[in-house]
Amino acid sequence: MTTTTTTSSPLTLASVQQAHELIKPFIHLTPVLTSTYLNTLASTPQTPSALSNTEWSSRPPSSPVLRLHFKCENLQRIGAFKARGAFHAIARLKQSPDFDPSRGVVTHSSGNHAQALSLAAKTSQIPAYIVMPSISNPSKVAATKGYGAQITFSGPTAPEREAAAQKIISSTGATLIPPYDHPDIICGQGTAALELLSQVPVPLHAIITPCGGGGLLSGTALACSEIKTKVFGAEPSFEGADDGRRGYYAGKRVESVKSLTIGDGLRTPLGKIPWSIIYTRKLVDGMYSVTEDQIKAAMRLVYERLKLVVEPSAVVGLAVALYNEDFRKMVEEEAGKEGWDLGVVFSGGNVSLSALGDLLKE
Amino acid sequence: MTTTTTTSSPLTLASVQQAHELIKPFIHLTPVLTSTYLNTLASTPQTPSALSNTEWSSRPPSSPVLRLHFKCENLQRIGAFKARGAFHAIARLKQSPDFDPSRGVVTHSSGNHAQALSLAAKTSQIPAYIVMPSISNPSKVAATKGYGAQITFSGPTAPEREAAAQKIISSTGATLIPPYDHPDIICGQGTAALELLSQVPVPLHAIITPCGGGGLLSGTALACSEIKTKVFGAEPSFEGADDGRRGYYAGKRVESVKSLTIGDGLRTPLGKIPWSIIYTRKLVDGMYSVTEDQIKAAMRLVYERLKLVVEPSAVVGLAVALYNEDFRKMVEEEAGKEGWDLGVVFSGGNVSLSALGDLLKE
Repeated sequence: MTTTTTTSSPLTLASVQQAHELIKPFIHLTPVLTSTYLNTLASTPQTPSALSNTEWSSRPPSSPVLRLHFKCENLQRIGAFKARGAFHAIARLKQSPDFDPSRGVVTHSSGNHAQALSLAAKTSQIPAYIVMPSISNPSKVAATKGYGAQITFSGPTAPEREAAAQKIISSTGATLIPPYDHPDIICGQGTAALELLSQVPVPLHAIITPCGGGGLLSGTALACSEIKTKVFGAEPSFEGADDGRRGYYAGKRVESVKSLTIGDGLRTPLGKIPWSIIYTRKLVDGMYSVTEDQIKAAMRLVYERLKLVVEPSAVVGLAVALYNEDFRKMVEEEAGKEGWDLGVVFSGGNVSLSALGDLLKE
Repeated sequence: MTTTTTTSSPLTLASVQQAHELIKPFIHLTPVLTSTYLNTLASTPQTPSALSNTEWSSRPPSSPVLRLHFKCENLQRIGAFKARGAFHAIARLKQSPDFDPSRGVVTHSSGNHAQALSLAAKTSQIPAYIVMPSISNPSKVAATKGYGAQITFSGPTAPEREAAAQKIISSTGATLIPPYDHPDIICGQGTAALELLSQVPVPLHAIITPCGGGGLLSGTALACSEIKTKVFGAEPSFEGADDGRRGYYAGKRVESVKSLTIGDGLRTPLGKIPWSIIYTRKLVDGMYSVTEDQIKAAMRLVYERLKLVVEPSAVVGLAVALYNEDFRKMVEEEAGKEGWDLGVVFSGGNVSLSALGDLLKE
């Protein structure tokens, strides 16, 4: 497949900083919010019911001190951090002498990357071809069409999507912009953490982000690679969607995942390049997972207390901070009474109103 | 009734600026968001269906150019701008030599002011007594209790609530902090507009805010009283909740309202002091109203496009900008092709999840 990997960014902090300069005119500087209530809740031992499904419910609950700083990428353009990587990939492509804009760009994505690439391509008047699984979230399909992209539906597995994309490349000559396994995408996603670090008035002890294909997590790791801020990844545990965590602790990347977790942005396996940053270079300090119920509980808290619309995938980091006893015990031990200032990235807010209504009514 | 009006702020821009200095340590600097989609929608002639219930559906729809800047007071502490006025009133009281903190403060409120005063009082370790109508939004009652206030339920009318408050004053010696008809409250609420003006990189042509008792609208008018920025008020029209608009154009304040509009924060009549600023001093340039369906449509857009949880009262300003032909025609005529940068204040986000689920499922 034709990718532009040969001319793409080296995987360093400097590349993330350069990406930020390139995309600044096109993205929102999303706000960082705090909540006294959620800080208190995170710093209170959890009840056994909130921790159900963990193996730790028999020991006394931990009592970490956490001050949470929420980076609201649900308020980003197209409603997700994916705008960052897409605008960066397009900006880099346009710098390449052998790129022919009229041939367009193509990708396969379950949703947010599709919208992001469509918007970024449209902004530069480049055609966008999007391969989406036919089971995609209807609001994401509608929004992608709204940005003027040409959509092709495919089966849900990675090989099916890749084959459909390859067919488009053969007929149009479009350049493939994969959703996460690409240096320019990774460096673009890392800009959210750069901003977060500059927006919080104190140094952050750590940042936790959702991990699907790993673009956001590995970009965040690059952004923090020359400072002391630790980086953690969060995943749903449902039907094995915690492939990143399993691979990280087994020392071998899990290459295939088939989960229908409500965190629909996190159903994909961790990509090769993200893995090289997260695991091989050890730029991520730990991976944690949460149950579907814990994701729903965190979502409700974000609606009620932070007044934000978030998609289920977005809140896995908060769910880890509130409900994962491994994580909480680790913070308690590392941070002591002083506690941690923890950056928590909300990745997106693209959820259909009817799905939202169902979730909130439960 | 014992109020501290004699020692309270003069109704000037300087007082709003001083209020901001006093409350800054206690409130959030809430973000200002923009949306390309909503700018395009607001700058597109509306379909007759969106404008149904207006008397203008027979003339060609107007075509104003609007760039909207949303001041997100739903992201304020306690989920509403009311935190500003309450923290200011408490700060001013504490400066008064004859204030005895142990006697506490009392108010009557349908919800957000109750939470705000409870939080501000708790922060200064002052007892808070709250009179709430028994039909109040359950999430607001629960949150108020959560801040440690003592709640007394009353009938829904103003005289019933005032009588219940008076009884508490007689027995405790608490100081009354009314929800809007008080200079310190008004100057506190005006600080949202001060921030909005400083956060937007261009001068705002106008600001529109919801209008219930008129604290936010009149405070905004004071904040803009020495600059060219125009100020507009927005109300629901349902069952006469547009008392402010009716009074403004009739030249006489409407003293009583009995509406069950979904904009539950806007069911109260415009207060005397707000009226003196809005009408007598002509610091507000116009008042507009919208239907219940237009409020719901605006709410859905805010959920889908801005990814924010807002209560129905919060979006009446946006609904006016999108759907009120009187307003849109006026903008078209005044602004021409250059258009307006319009500040739109989202007043709050306190809506129960079940009510929200119902609204979104419709």
